[in-house]
Formats: sequence, C-alpha cells, structure tokens
Amino acid sequence: MVAKITGLRTYDIRFPTSRELDGSDAMNPAPDYSASYVVIDTDAGDGLEGHGFAFTIGRGNDVQTAAIQGLEFAVAGRPVQDTLDDLGGMWRELVHDSQLRWLGPEKGVVHMAIAAVVNALWDLKAKRAGKPLWQLLAELTPEQIIELVDFRYLSDALAPGEALEILRRAEPGRAARLAKLRDGGYPAYTTTPGWLGYSDEKLRRLCREAVEQGFRQLKLKVGADLTDDIRRMRIAREEVGPDIRIAVDANQRWDVGTAIDWVRELAPFDPWWVEEPTSPDDVLGHAAIAQAIAPVRVASGEHAANRVVFKQLLQANALSYLQLDVARVAGVNENVAILLLAAKFGVPVCPHAGGVGLCELVQHLAMFDFVAVSGSMDDRVIEYVDHLHEHFVDPVTLREGRYLAPSRPGFSAELRPGTLVDYAYPHGPVWTSIAEGTGA
Amino acid sequence: MVAKITGLRTYDIRFPTSRELDGSDAMNPAPDYSASYVVIDTDAGDGLEGHGFAFTIGRGNDVQTAAIQGLEFAVAGRPVQDTLDDLGGMWRELVHDSQLRWLGPEKGVVHMAIAAVVNALWDLKAKRAGKPLWQLLAELTPEQIIELVDFRYLSDALAPGEALEILRRAEPGRAARLAKLRDGGYPAYTTTPGWLGYSDEKLRRLCREAVEQGFRQLKLKVGADLTDDIRRMRIAREEVGPDIRIAVDANQRWDVGTAIDWVRELAPFDPWWVEEPTSPDDVLGHAAIAQAIAPVRVASGEHAANRVVFKQLLQANALSYLQLDVARVAGVNENVAILLLAAKFGVPVCPHAGGVGLCELVQHLAMFDFVAVSGSMDDRVIEYVDHLHEHFVDPVTLREGRYLAPSRPGFSAELRPGTLVDYAYPHGPVWTSIAEGTGA
Repeated sequence: MVAKITGLRTYDIRFPTSRELDGSDAMNPAPDYSASYVVIDTDAGDGLEGHGFAFTIGRGNDVQTAAIQGLEFAVAGRPVQDTLDDLGGMWRELVHDSQLRWLGPEKGVVHMAIAAVVNALWDLKAKRAGKPLWQLLAELTPEQIIELVDFRYLSDALAPGEALEILRRAEPGRAARLAKLRDGGYPAYTTTPGWLGYSDEKLRRLCREAVEQGFRQLKLKVGADLTDDIRRMRIAREEVGPDIRIAVDANQRWDVGTAIDWVRELAPFDPWWVEEPTSPDDVLGHAAIAQAIAPVRVASGEHAANRVVFKQLLQANALSYLQLDVARVAGVNENVAILLLAAKFGVPVCPHAGGVGLCELVQHLAMFDFVAVSGSMDDRVIEYVDHLHEHFVDPVTLREGRYLAPSRPGFSAELRPGTLVDYAYPHGPVWTSIAEGTGA
Repeated sequence: MVAKITGLRTYDIRFPTSRELDGSDAMNPAPDYSASYVVIDTDAGDGLEGHGFAFTIGRGNDVQTAAIQGLEFAVAGRPVQDTLDDLGGMWRELVHDSQLRWLGPEKGVVHMAIAAVVNALWDLKAKRAGKPLWQLLAELTPEQIIELVDFRYLSDALAPGEALEILRRAEPGRAARLAKLRDGGYPAYTTTPGWLGYSDEKLRRLCREAVEQGFRQLKLKVGADLTDDIRRMRIAREEVGPDIRIAVDANQRWDVGTAIDWVRELAPFDPWWVEEPTSPDDVLGHAAIAQAIAPVRVASGEHAANRVVFKQLLQANALSYLQLDVARVAGVNENVAILLLAAKFGVPVCPHAGGVGLCELVQHLAMFDFVAVSGSMDDRVIEYVDHLHEHFVDPVTLREGRYLAPSRPGFSAELRPGTLVDYAYPHGPVWTSIAEGTGA
C-alpha cells in the first residue's frame, strides 16, 4: 500500500495579547495574536505530521481557518511521497485552482490558506527527510530549486535561466556557509522595545537591555503622533548611542506626502529604515517615498500580497530592504521566488517575524537564502520579537543577538499539544475564563 | 423606539454554469457562477430589507459567505436611520477594523465581504428613499458625495478639494443628463458571443445576432491558443464589419512579453482594447504593455483589489479604459472614489459586468457617473452578458444595445425567493439532483 495523505485538521487558536498592549502599533492598537493552524495527517504509520498556520490578529481567524479546511479536497487521498517529491506541482495546483483563485486572485484569505497548507507539506517533507527545513532546501540542486518556482508573471523581471544562474553562482560556497551558519547563527534585530503602548521608561529600559543582549539593530513603532515619535526616537537614540541601527515602522499609517514629511522630522535621529510607510499595495507610492527620504531607506513586504507585488517594488527601486513574510504569500515556494527576485535586484532580504511563530518559520528561509541563494549575511537581519515562543515544540534560540540554526527536523511550526487545547477559540479554557471574567 | 438593524442572513447560492461552458475563458475553464448572498433585516416594520452579494465562481463560496456573516457584529444593533445617514462612516469602520484588515489588507475575501454588506446597506437606503440607487446617488450634493469617500492613500493623486471641484463642475448639467438617461439609456457592449468554449459556428451566429440587437461593441475571450484566437478574431471581424468595436479579453493569462507579442498578432483585426492582459496586480506590467501595443488600448480593473491599485494604474498611464467591479472593491463608497479618480485622470469607466447580478448592480454606478461625476457617456459602455438575469426581482432591461435606467427603488440586487431555495448549495434541489445524477 502506498501511504496517503488522509486529511487536514484545523484549529482556531488565539492568544489574548490585546490585554497587554504587546504588539500595539499605529494601525493595530489591540491585536489578539492568532494562528489558523493546520495539521496534515497521513496513513504512513511513521508518526509524522505536517504542521503549518496562517497568522492573524484575532477577528476573522475562524474564516481563515475555514479557508484552510476548505483546501482538504486538494490534498486528501494523495500519495504522500509523490506529493512531497513535487511540491512545485502541488503549489501550482493550489494557486491556479481557477474557482478558488477568483477569491483573490493570489491574495488575502485564500492565498494565506494555501500558505498554511504548503508550509505544512514542507514541514512534513523535512521531518521525513530528518532535516531542518533550511538544510533540506539548501541541499537541493539549483535545478530542483527552480522546479519549486512558478515564473508566471515574473518573466519580465526574472527568467528561469537567470534564476538558475544565480543559484549556480552560489553553489561552490555552500558547504563553507553552512558551516559558518552552524557556528555563528544569523543576525537578528529586535522589535521588543518599540511597541506604541509602552511607557517612555519601559522603552528606555528595553532599548538598554536589547543592546546588552547583543542586538545591533532595534525597531520602534511610529505613526500615531509625531511629537510622541520624536520624543521616543530621541530616548532610543540616547540610550543606544550612534552605532546601533534604529529602524522605524509606520505599519501603513501614512499617505505618501505625510510619510515624506514625517520621516524628515525623524531624520535628525538617524532612522536606519522606515518600514511600511504607506499602503502595501502602493508600489509607486513606496518608490516616491524612497526617492524623497533618501538616505533614509524604505523597507516593506510583510503585507505584500504576492510575488507580483514584490517584483514591482524591486523594478521601481522602491525598497532598500525586502521583508518577506513566511505565511502571507503562498508559503515556501513563493518565498523562494521572492528570494530569487531579491538576489537578481541585489536587495537584501530582512524577513518579517514576530506574531505567532513567524520567527520560528522564517529563520529557515533566511538561512536557506544565505547558504544557497544570495550567499550573504551582510546587511541582513531577521526580525525578532520575544512573544509566544513558549508555545512551540521547537522554539527559536537566540544568542548574542543572533538566531542559532535549528537542528531539529521540520519547519519548527509545531504548537505544543497543550496550547491547542488551552487557547482554542472560543471554547478553550483561556477564553472561557476571560468570558467569565476570571481570566488573568 | 428607534428602528434597529437586527442582523444578517447569508446564503451560499451557486448556479451549475460549468455544465454549459457559458462563462469559460482562458483562466476560468469551468466556473459555477455563485453568489455569497446577504440580506440585512431591521425591526422598522416597513417590510424593507437590504440585499447584496459577493460574486464568486464556485469553490470557496462557503468561505466567502462565512466572511459576510462574520461582519454581523459590526451592523447588528445599530439604529437604521443613523447608519444609513452616514454610510461613509460605516464604510470606514468596516474597512479599518484593524483585526479584520490584517486578512487583506483591503483585498480578497474580507474586502469582498465588506462589499456585499456595504452594497446591501445602500440597497436598503435606496428602498427607504423610494428611489433607484443611481438616482439617489445622483441627487446627493457634492459635499455629501465627498463624505462617502475615504481619501486615505489617495491624496497624492486626488485630494478631497479636487474631488469636490470635479463634482461641482458636473452639477449644472445634472438635470439635463438625468432626462437624457431616462429617455435613451446607457450604451452596452456584449460578451455573449465570445466565450472560449463556443464553436466557430456559434461564435459567428452570436456575433451577427449581437449587431442585429443593436450592440456597437462586442468582446471575445482570448489567450488559450494563438491560432484559435486569430481564427476567431477573423470570423468575428468578417461577421461584424469594420465599424463595430471588437474587444478581446485575456483574463490575466499572459506574462508581459507574451501579452505584447500576442496582441501584435491580433492587431491586423483591429481589436479595440485588450482586457486583463496580465496579473491584475501588475501596474508596471500593464503600463509596459499599454506602451508597447498602442494604438490598441489596455482595459482592466475587474480584479483590481482596491482604490490604491486603481490609483496607480491611472498614475502609470496603464489604462485607456477603467473597468470597475461593483463587488470586488468595498462596494459603492470605494467605487465612488474610483469614479472620481478616473474623472481626475480623464479615463473613461467601462464597468465589468456579467457573472451573477453584476449587470444589475453596476448599471447604477455608471448612470450615477454620467449624471454627477464624469458627466459623459462618450466612449463609455457597460458590459452586458445575458446570464442569470431571470433570477433577479428587478433584472436589467436592454433595448437596442443600451441599458434602460432602472426605476424601481433600490440597487436591483434582490434574488427571487425561489432562487434562494432552488440553488442553495449544497442542499437545494438543483444541487441534490445533480449529486444524484438526475440533474438537467
């Protein structure tokens, strides 16, 4: 008997983070960090499951979860090994399902649902191979990597032949970089100090602690009030001195003109980049802002819907840093395309993380990029936020401001069994106790 | 007692259109035209309900319907009159709900859910006013119209003051245009002849019939096979002669280079516009195609996610015709913004229609535009497809290739009660008989 995928189990998991103002920013004042979580089951009898999720901030997590469950028809009944051997084909089938595509196309709830399932399939593939995902990816041949990518809509910026060339150029140094990664990890920056809801004292203390912990870059949320932002930026700069990079993040709060004016007011404090200055759909707006605020740099991408938006951001010279998100575009395959686009345009990738489990997942993509695509860690950092890691079976390990390379097989996506019970929404004990007014 | 909105009722309604190849195109070979349908109830005791829907093509209509139902929290319990008096405020509250916004932002399933609810509120408002929606809108003052629009992310292209100026310029001629519209209707073009699934004979016959019916423009689906497209374009041109416009529609099938090459092969048959030549997200791609294929024109918009994408398509000179969709962007309010953007840039709006009920709804927006925004019908046509109108309580009326102005109060969005029963998915009689193999 050939082992088959038997189905998907989905879970609406929510954490009551809005009660602490962790994660508060100018557009998202009260998020309840949530995961639309999926487990892929097989009848292989090896005890292995694939785990993945979409990250949301509360309301609508039920709809997102239903969208993931709705993809079961596309994977249930398939042979496990054949499916995992051709995840490029699986990706195309999911993304190009014409009826589902109408609901995006390639954006929003359906695209994020595909991300969760695709990432869960990669988790399963890596577990079956007995390797952490970053290593599994980094050991594929250039030709195998190209097979993962759908070049539809990309060919005016990146042809398959060019992509292959990029991968082949990186091939000779792979072993040395793999060793370097295992020795020293990958640099991180921290968003922990800078949430809008924190007091000046807390900001000051957290900035100081970040530097003590070894971070060379930190980030402040901005965009709600200019006077506050100037004061907070001054405090942070005072605390960390001139050599630590301070990025600022507006979370899409501004129109183009406002972004330019606001960033100029912050410029005296040397912000390293300004993140999501306006609508994530506004390629031309990002380009106009980038031109106007130089030498301050523009970073964006966590809400870019798909590779077509990233392609244009690069074509328009709108980004100094590209911030891919592991679960908004359609998972590993689409992110491989985005890493190749970034390499083609010579733009460093500094992945978005935080939320629920985004750090756990995205480290694999950055490490794969280092070993097999861009071949560089220079001027690159992975975001780090110290939220909710305790819920994961294989949480990230930070040391002296660097992510250590995961060694456990898989994609580090698995939530602890107790978390799936305690934080189930709305009937898990954490939520029922909040509803009864007895919550913490 | 102040009358209140009591709740939303939602329905997953699907039509088995894939069995006839009506609606087949290069990207959507087998659509089952569907509506995620919503009814807004009140306790006003006036017997009036608000009706709206999202249009999908089958799979995922359940998720779309759940997303609409998930918006009930935002409208249930509100006072009816106050809510309808400030639909600009209601729109902002729905679109800027930060937790829900994360699932787009402003795109995909959640944005289309907002469209359905916003349009249903407009339907209710027009019914309570005893007017067809186009007339209700066209009788608002310029200041009231501006209040409907959220200018966030638009101000670099269109400031509120400029928008007001556009509306004021159109004010003096409103009465004359309203009379002209009631007399002669609004020009339509027909997509009926050109579906990919039709035989050459059927194409030829339908082209001839379209001209006999008074249409001055028709449209062919293209993009699956170049040889077929050349043959079909030749047939159509032979049948209709040189004076009838023939548009072609690729439904996003091509990469940028392919689009340019393909359209050049069709150019000898004088295609009027090429529609959706590539990804709807690819502003720069549309602009490159437009420049390369001139004097053939580019039309797009039915899958443009929101006003920010339309803004850029206009800024980049990517469109000769803007094809707004009534239920993909967030309903009437966002379409008012898009009509104002188009007027600012001097680009004619030729709305997307067809599907389920899109003709019924979008005629109201085009007619409002004629009376109160652009002030012109020149070089403008509303798409017409003769599908599924029989399911609507107030179906469109075509005469000699023109839409007649609706006179019945509301937004023409209401499905017949029998349709809500017969086509309910998956348990309505049409679907159970198909499942049992006894379907037509």
